[in-house]
Parts: sequence; structure tokens; C-alpha cells
Amino acid sequence: MPKEPQMRSSPEFDLIARVRERMRATLRASPSASAVRVGIGDDAAVTVPLPGRGATATSVDALVDGIGFRRRWCPPGAVGRKALGAALSDLAAMGAQPGEAYVWLGMPEDFDAEEALELCDGLAELAERHGVAILGGDLTRAPALAVSVTAVGYAADPEHLVGRDGALEGDALCATGSFGGAAAGLMLLEHPRMEAEVEPLVRDACVARQLDPEPLLRGGAALVAAGARAMVDVSDGLGADAGHLAAASGLGIEIELDRVPVAPGVAEVATAAGRDPTELVVSGGEDYELLCAVPRLALADCVAAAERCDTRLTEIGRFTDGGSVRVRLPGGRSVPASGHDHLRPR
Amino acid sequence: MPKEPQMRSSPEFDLIARVRERMRATLRASPSASAVRVGIGDDAAVTVPLPGRGATATSVDALVDGIGFRRRWCPPGAVGRKALGAALSDLAAMGAQPGEAYVWLGMPEDFDAEEALELCDGLAELAERHGVAILGGDLTRAPALAVSVTAVGYAADPEHLVGRDGALEGDALCATGSFGGAAAGLMLLEHPRMEAEVEPLVRDACVARQLDPEPLLRGGAALVAAGARAMVDVSDGLGADAGHLAAASGLGIEIELDRVPVAPGVAEVATAAGRDPTELVVSGGEDYELLCAVPRLALADCVAAAERCDTRLTEIGRFTDGGSVRVRLPGGRSVPASGHDHLRPR
Repeated sequence: MPKEPQMRSSPEFDLIARVRERMRATLRASPSASAVRVGIGDDAAVTVPLPGRGATATSVDALVDGIGFRRRWCPPGAVGRKALGAALSDLAAMGAQPGEAYVWLGMPEDFDAEEALELCDGLAELAERHGVAILGGDLTRAPALAVSVTAVGYAADPEHLVGRDGALEGDALCATGSFGGAAAGLMLLEHPRMEAEVEPLVRDACVARQLDPEPLLRGGAALVAAGARAMVDVSDGLGADAGHLAAASGLGIEIELDRVPVAPGVAEVATAAGRDPTELVVSGGEDYELLCAVPRLALADCVAAAERCDTRLTEIGRFTDGGSVRVRLPGGRSVPASGHDHLRPR
Repeated sequence: MPKEPQMRSSPEFDLIARVRERMRATLRASPSASAVRVGIGDDAAVTVPLPGRGATATSVDALVDGIGFRRRWCPPGAVGRKALGAALSDLAAMGAQPGEAYVWLGMPEDFDAEEALELCDGLAELAERHGVAILGGDLTRAPALAVSVTAVGYAADPEHLVGRDGALEGDALCATGSFGGAAAGLMLLEHPRMEAEVEPLVRDACVARQLDPEPLLRGGAALVAAGARAMVDVSDGLGADAGHLAAASGLGIEIELDRVPVAPGVAEVATAAGRDPTELVVSGGEDYELLCAVPRLALADCVAAAERCDTRLTEIGRFTDGGSVRVRLPGGRSVPASGHDHLRPR
């Protein structure tokens, strides 16, 4: 990381040197390697355009202790993976191929050098898995652990990227994977006593969804190529992010609740907590699945494309001419998705 | 800013809409406008390469309450200007032309919507002055006010950018402007009682250096074009950043203290504080001047280039074959620049 304004003592310079070394290693496995002229350690990183990179997508995501995670249940490596994963998930939602990342790490006094290196290892590990080169950043003291990641991705042409807008009335609303797992994991992590009430396998599956979101980069690009014409990643929650798609496209959305795939373990965790699983599925965030608008004629192609990328695409609803997101409950009643209170059985 | 994970109530959605609107305005005055395909508000911003942008320079800088500034003396607008200014100063030190910026803003509970808008106004104002388009970011709750900025700049060719390395033995060490002003401003802001002991004009000049650093973007590019072959911006302090130049180039540096221009007011503030002005000049950071290696034959051209950009370039020392940064005091004694204690008169 280029600078060390608040860290001048020698153990801290040593930490910076070790962090830089770990980050430099991400360059080797990255398609961006041939683009880099100046890597980590100078005032700025320098890259040159590569053939086939006619459009650049740039996204920012941040994690702060007490907001996106808690240090008491989130190991440093998971903080690093999750911060980068969330930023890369935004690129996936555009259909972009990942390229580079830039990281700011704010370290409290009680976060030691070993923890910082673990965090950087987590970042670097996920970066290497997706061919992302970490080219720079900044390291400062902060009152609470915080990580901000700027991720840069590419496509051959801007036409190969999709935004949240562009859905048409009648388009299928489709989702990758399953929902509620990250929220169930969060419940288990926040209330460790609940762990005794669920099977260890269930616990592990839910906690992994919360701590290790996997950005669907291949899936996002494949869905755009197969015809998906508006897309968002589910970070805020299925209902909220469907709202972003609907608003950007100037349409409404109807979600059929009984078609939404529920992540393994969600029912057990909800039962143990005395909560309705629907809450976790519709309002729980951080599943980092993709939600997209698919023209009817492209539906089969999109399902096949997702399958080739090891995820399942499910039609969970449709775009309507209304202006709101509604959830159709089993039995036919339809309620607004704006808050989970509406979804509670009466 | 694309996302609002922790902010779902309507006044906060309203804040996000107002922030986006202010940021979108920065696009109008920016040369990057024609490059933008998707601006602020989607999962990621999308840009296309423009002719004449054969190299991209990317830099990250962050400011955190209690570390880089204190809310009690730093108005929100100044926090915004300073965060962006520091990131742009890194681009200036490469000789890059500014292009876009991406911002993460972490807001504590007691930082209200009006303050957030003031901060964004400060960011946007500086962005507009330098033709920078703010294309995206993230807005979350945080325990302390924090801003992280990723700034992206361009040059026609990677050869038109310089790093910290590349100086040769015998090169002149040159600096723009003057030193110690930001540190003197910090003293006045941290110890308001001192203000009675200095003239109001002195106070204002020093405080402006601390709160409103001006990134020397035109100056940086002009110096590279005129022959400067290694450059750094002075954020950590003259001695420390000279150390970065020396280390990257594998050389030593000798600074002649009596040639270093002292910022207006530094002597008065140091006297009022009972401190040696040399401390502020050599060890005080955040002056955001440029420090560069200039071959002897290019010295006149570099001085003239700086003058055309309304700054003065001064030869303050030279690159030597040693491995350390030393300061020659008036009278001839030479001491290491590594700590200000060495510089105190004995």
C-alpha cells in the first residue's frame, strides 16, 4: 500500500512491507498482470489498456466493525474476503470480468500485525481465486476496523454490461441460488446459544454464507451473454434489491414467495429463533445472489448459462406495470415487500 | 452512491438521492464526461477508454476523525475537500491528469444529513475545480467519520508518468512552494488559545494550508514534461517523503535546510508555541507540495514550467550515493532527517 502517514515506527513499516509483498503476489495469477506498469508501493498504480477491455466497471464497497460484521465473530481473514467479495459482487451484477482492486484498511490500536496480515491473506486469497490484482491502497489507524475496497472490472464493450435499468414489462424476474442463508448465519453468529439448537452441518452452511460470500463473476457475465437485460446483486435483501431493479426500470415487480429457493438451514434456524423463515428469505441481506430481468424468449438460455457456471437460475416472479414490489404469498394474498412485518402470518 | 445497505429509512434514502444529485453535477465540468456510460447510482460505474488516455494512474487516500483531522476543528466541507485533495495530490506526484473519483463515506450517528451534504459539497467543489467526475461510492454507518477516496487519473502514455524511483546521483532535489504551513495550522487548530498570540492573517494562512490543501495537478504534469524524473508529494513530511524518493531510487539525499522555503506564518506560530520552526518544516506533514529529482540540465526548464503553473520550484538539495536522508544545517553540520529531535539546536 503506497503510504503510511500514521505509521512510522519500524514494526509498522515492517507490517507494510509484508502487506505489500502479499498483495504483489496477487498480480501473478491475474490477467491484469500484463497491464501493470507501476504496482503497489508508489503514489499511484499505473496500468495501460489491454485489448478486449473496451469498457471499465468500477465499484466501491466498505465493511465496518459493528455495521457489516463484528470482530468477535468474524475472523480477520473473513473480513478481508467479505470486503473484496462484496465489491466483486457488484461487478458480477454488471456482467464484468474482474481486473484490479484497491484497498483502504483502517486499523484500531488493538488490531495487531498478525491480524492485519490474516485480513490481507483473506483479501489476497479471494483475489487470486478470481484473477484480481490488488494494486494499491492505504493503511491508517482508525477507531474501529474498517475496510473499503474499490474493484475495477472490464468487458469487451459497454454493450456487454447491464445496469439495474432495462427490464421490460412481462420479463421474468430470475434469481441465482438460494436466499436467507446469510441472514440465518448472522443470527447464529450473533446468538451463539442458538447453535445448540441446530445441526452442526446446518450451522456451518449458514455461517459460511454469512462469512464467505462468493461473488458470482462467471455467472453474471454468462447471464448477460445469454440475454439477461437488467441485474442487481442481493446485498440489501431480496425485497429491497428487487425494489432497486423495479425503480431503475420504472416498473413494478411481483415475487411469488413459494418459488423463491430457500437456502439450506434457514427453516431450522428460523424455528430455533422463533422467527418466520420468510423474514430471512425476503428481508435478510448479504446473500450476494444475482437477481435479473430475463425476456421470456431468453429464459431457457439463461437457465442453461447459469448451470454451466454451477448455479441454478430460478424464475421467482415477473416485472409488472405497477411501481412497487409485491410478494404473492402461498394462498394468493399479495403484500408489499417493503418491510418484513407485512409478511408475517396473521 | 450506489448502495445504502444500512440506511433504509426514508430521510436516509432522501439523503442518498441528494448526495447522488450533487455528485452527478461534477460530471458536467469533467473531461471524463464523454467516457461515462453508467454514472453514479448503479452497482458500478461504466466508462470507456478515451483517445489520449494511454495510461491510467489510480490512488487511494483516506481520512478518519481523530487521525487525519478532528471534527471539532475541521468543518465537513473541509473534510471532503481534504480527502479528495490528498488523493489527487498522489496523482499530481505521478504527473497524471485527473479523471474520476470514487468515494466511501462512513457516517457516525451524530453526523447529520446537513453535515453529510456539506462534506459532499466540499468534495464536489474541489472535484469541479480540477475537472474530476465523482462516479460512485458507498455510504454506510461507521463509529467515526471516515472518508476513503479512490482517484483515477490519466496520461497519454505510461512514459509520461513518473514514480518515486528513477533519480540519479547528482540530480537536484527540488520542491514546489513552501513547507511547515500545514503543521503550523494544525498547531493552531489543536490549541485554540495560541490564536491570540499570532496575527489573524498568519492564522488564516496556516489554517488554510491545513484545511484546504490544493493538489498541484498542473504543476506535476508540467514538471514531468520539463524533465523531472522521480517525484513524490509531501504528505508525511519533507524528511519522510524525501526518504521515500531516496529509498525507491536506491540513493541518499542531502537537504540544505537554509534553502528550504518556509511557509508564511511558520516562524510566528513556532515562536508562540515555544518550538523550533525547523521541526514544522522538516517533520510536519500535509503540505502537499511536490518533491522531485531534476537532472541538472533540466533545472531551468523545470523552474520555468512550475512558474507557468503559479508555483515556485526551489532547489533544496541533491541526490547522493549514500543510502540516507541528511539535513545540512546552517553552519555546515549535517544530521539525519529521520526524526526532528536531531534537528534541535544544541
